[in-house]
Amino acid sequence: MSPEVNDAANDDAGGDPGTVRPGGRTARVRAAVLRTAGDALAEHGFARLDLADVARRADVGKSTVYRRWGTVAGLVADLLTDMAEQSLPRTETGSLLGDLRANAELVRSTLADPRQGALFKAVIAAATTDARTAESLHRFYEIRVAEWAPCVEHAVLRGELPKGTDPYEVIRAVSAPLYYRLLTSDAPLDEAAGARAAEAAAAAAKAGVYA
Amino acid sequence: MSPEVNDAANDDAGGDPGTVRPGGRTARVRAAVLRTAGDALAEHGFARLDLADVARRADVGKSTVYRRWGTVAGLVADLLTDMAEQSLPRTETGSLLGDLRANAELVRSTLADPRQGALFKAVIAAATTDARTAESLHRFYEIRVAEWAPCVEHAVLRGELPKGTDPYEVIRAVSAPLYYRLLTSDAPLDEAAGARAAEAAAAAAKAGVYA
Repeated sequence: MSPEVNDAANDDAGGDPGTVRPGGRTARVRAAVLRTAGDALAEHGFARLDLADVARRADVGKSTVYRRWGTVAGLVADLLTDMAEQSLPRTETGSLLGDLRANAELVRSTLADPRQGALFKAVIAAATTDARTAESLHRFYEIRVAEWAPCVEHAVLRGELPKGTDPYEVIRAVSAPLYYRLLTSDAPLDEAAGARAAEAAAAAAKAGVYA
Repeated sequence: MSPEVNDAANDDAGGDPGTVRPGGRTARVRAAVLRTAGDALAEHGFARLDLADVARRADVGKSTVYRRWGTVAGLVADLLTDMAEQSLPRTETGSLLGDLRANAELVRSTLADPRQGALFKAVIAAATTDARTAESLHRFYEIRVAEWAPCVEHAVLRGELPKGTDPYEVIRAVSAPLYYRLLTSDAPLDEAAGARAAEAAAAAAKAGVYA
């Protein structure tokens, strides 16, 4: 299980009281279908994703899947919504570099995870040709960037960064080299790459590049 | 025509003396086929690229295309080789920031160009599922990064950057935020984004992040 994106199926805790997520049949069906869709995307990509196949593999009625998600793009949109909802909240370490390192390590370990890395590649590829998937993907990143942006805002308040620093640009700057490495090279997404991404974003932010 | 990647067809100067590229029939056929393949990729993506269709649109015999390129992945590999060969050489402005700004503007304007942006998206998407295309794409970036790396080496020699700075990492750091923006958002690839990418890479390099 990736640290950034919990698996939907594991988060559906059935009727267990005290858990955050309600565990009715509808939630269980959604979790099973999204888990299966994620597996299928990671294994075979968007082009081979098929609602009837997902229903069969998830052991859910085909009509339920078609009624609830309608299309492959609709299913991927819901998967991305769930991934954003299930993603871990930000870490606060008390320093900009500490927070950006935590963010970088979360992104890095997610992309380095075989299933999650393949899943992100598949969705990014699909977004290049499918407008609805592109919209869902952009929304996913907006949510994740907004979750981490307060780390930068706090650093400005602490006087670590120039006033007027754009928090969103700093958080995006942490992710960018990791996604670039994933998509344009076969270099490993090792911990050094994550640390460097955080340090580069912090150095550029301190130099006032994002202000 | 994009500033980073010249169009193959325009570079094939027929038998015109004084041009760099030899202009025999073989070169003209290659130029026409690669131009057509690039157009088709930009318009419809890798999944719908078809050798027979490219041959018809390029007005070249189908058997010639199959004999010379064999497969769609083979054709895309040759297109990427040609794009790397035709790409503009680095600019030397005398300062690290000037050189990185020139590099960023070249990448930015290429990705912002409708045809070239769509072409890069299509090839990056294809590389997520096709191993041969991934290899060709990685090679393309290795060549382009190596072309610009001496800007960083010269900055080290001039004392602008710490000794031991990894020139490849600095050049990749310029491109990363531009590709990230292209693939994960609908934000425009404007000149400000290019300038910021260059300034961030320069600031991080000066802070010793890549040493």
